[in-house]
Amino acid sequence: MTDSRPDVEETFKDVLRGWRQKINERLANIVETQKPALLYEPIRYVLQGGGKRIRPVMVLLSCQAVGGKPEWALDAAVAVELVHNFTLVHDDIMDEDDKRRGRLTLHKKWNQALAILAGDGLFALSYQTLLRTQSARIHEITNIFTNGILAVCEGQALDLEFEKREAVGLDDYLAMIQKKTARLLAISAEIGALIGNGGADEVKALGDFANNLGCAFQIQDDLLDITSNEGTLGKTFGSDIQQRKQTYLLVHAWRHADSDSKAQLQQLLSETEFNHAQVAAVKSIFDRVGSIQSAKAAIKQYTAAAEKSLEQLGYTLAKEKLMSLLRYVSTRIS
Amino acid sequence: MTDSRPDVEETFKDVLRGWRQKINERLANIVETQKPALLYEPIRYVLQGGGKRIRPVMVLLSCQAVGGKPEWALDAAVAVELVHNFTLVHDDIMDEDDKRRGRLTLHKKWNQALAILAGDGLFALSYQTLLRTQSARIHEITNIFTNGILAVCEGQALDLEFEKREAVGLDDYLAMIQKKTARLLAISAEIGALIGNGGADEVKALGDFANNLGCAFQIQDDLLDITSNEGTLGKTFGSDIQQRKQTYLLVHAWRHADSDSKAQLQQLLSETEFNHAQVAAVKSIFDRVGSIQSAKAAIKQYTAAAEKSLEQLGYTLAKEKLMSLLRYVSTRIS
Repeated sequence: MTDSRPDVEETFKDVLRGWRQKINERLANIVETQKPALLYEPIRYVLQGGGKRIRPVMVLLSCQAVGGKPEWALDAAVAVELVHNFTLVHDDIMDEDDKRRGRLTLHKKWNQALAILAGDGLFALSYQTLLRTQSARIHEITNIFTNGILAVCEGQALDLEFEKREAVGLDDYLAMIQKKTARLLAISAEIGALIGNGGADEVKALGDFANNLGCAFQIQDDLLDITSNEGTLGKTFGSDIQQRKQTYLLVHAWRHADSDSKAQLQQLLSETEFNHAQVAAVKSIFDRVGSIQSAKAAIKQYTAAAEKSLEQLGYTLAKEKLMSLLRYVSTRIS
Repeated sequence: MTDSRPDVEETFKDVLRGWRQKINERLANIVETQKPALLYEPIRYVLQGGGKRIRPVMVLLSCQAVGGKPEWALDAAVAVELVHNFTLVHDDIMDEDDKRRGRLTLHKKWNQALAILAGDGLFALSYQTLLRTQSARIHEITNIFTNGILAVCEGQALDLEFEKREAVGLDDYLAMIQKKTARLLAISAEIGALIGNGGADEVKALGDFANNLGCAFQIQDDLLDITSNEGTLGKTFGSDIQQRKQTYLLVHAWRHADSDSKAQLQQLLSETEFNHAQVAAVKSIFDRVGSIQSAKAAIKQYTAAAEKSLEQLGYTLAKEKLMSLLRYVSTRIS
């Protein structure tokens, strides 16, 4: 798997590159000239902040995978990216994060009031953009879009709730990431498939695919936080641990550690400052308890489920591209 | 006008009473049992906080005024009230207000993160509810709804911008309240009329009516802040002045005061603490400069325009009720 990584990444990057410019252009056009500046300047700033644009590409490829033209789904693709950015802006306020993608977060660059408002503006703009979609199924699409957003809010609430709980079960954790992370990917796929006039089976298959991909992605993210090198990761090594975030690893370790390891973990997490040695100690507990192995197994399981869902579709180039996206997620090192 | 006030209020209250219970029931049902509690408890708290429910009643009466059954518009009515509450929750954070309708605001009762999230949840719930509407024109309705919300965000941005500006023109101010206050009433009327299968002229007439009503209402609100007795008003006398809010009166006074009055006003507004004597002094400047008279004239103008818009509709009981709503706004003393 390690050997094939560069190729996998190349293929995946090609897939994204093909559409990213178009999506970025559309995003820029949406808020090009609007006033008042106090609302639209922060929105422009967020949308220029980059990002892989995986969700809109998921919309476009899902449309193509059921025989539609990706152009049909461009507005919906941009709408999903707007929603994603709305959640990032508000989450950054809630989590008190100062930086995102190497730049100041909105509430740091402007202030909290304008960050709340910019998030709300992005939310409204997402519907405005979605509703431009020419599709006989626009009502169903808007419903899926709405239910998806509500699920993301529920996922965020669960995440906040877990911060205050010590004993979170793995099932609770998986239900949370399914809502907070995977759902937006799942509705991206479903909406794309609906715009492409896919049958109910195809819509479901693509939704399941994206949902499983999203879960694999999140657990991979949790794992990389503690197993990758700082340089590769692009963020602080062990930052989840430092922020006491409930990750797959921590949730698993709490449940499966013997009393000695548990006491040691508790001791480490009670420190106010973390150094590399302490993160390494946490990592070694995760290793000993089997949490890292369990995370890897879970990623494999979700990846296999995603692949199985995708196999239900007939051959298209888009399907191959979706598969390369899956491979990228399961093998990424940063 | 003073003599007719009790009757006008009674008629208006009857109009509201007839629907308020039904609307409150629906609002309660929407978030009755949902989990997680961390998202839905704050939402339940907000929706139980009361309020006149003027916007949903505007939706229902507008539907009726063009010949539709109000029941057709119930989901849309509730949706507009959900959006209104979403804006209140986020505005209260932005304005750092501790109380609303005599109760702690969400970010005070819980915390800021949960208040942001509850607002987002209300936003998503509003679409979920709106989309239940059975209407062939649901796409147009959803577009109007969305554009209205974006306008409210723009109005809030203008309001925040004005706080930092000394010289705000009356036109700027009127454009701001049209977006921040009147637009939600206007889309309530338009959406109701569309659900009732009103013709384009009727939709426009009702939208114009509600827009003018909204502007009259806001200027009346500005005026009452400084002309009513504290007991009647239910909030602190002169609270707008104390918070340095841009009101019709202040904007007008800045523009029309001679240099002496301006210097005096500047002096008064630079005080950190306000007592009743100082508020009275501000009021007397407003009086001398003609700002109070101008506000009264503006209310009259908007009220007349609203009445004229409404007159374009044929006679219905709903139309009479809308007229009584207008009379209430133009004669209310608190």
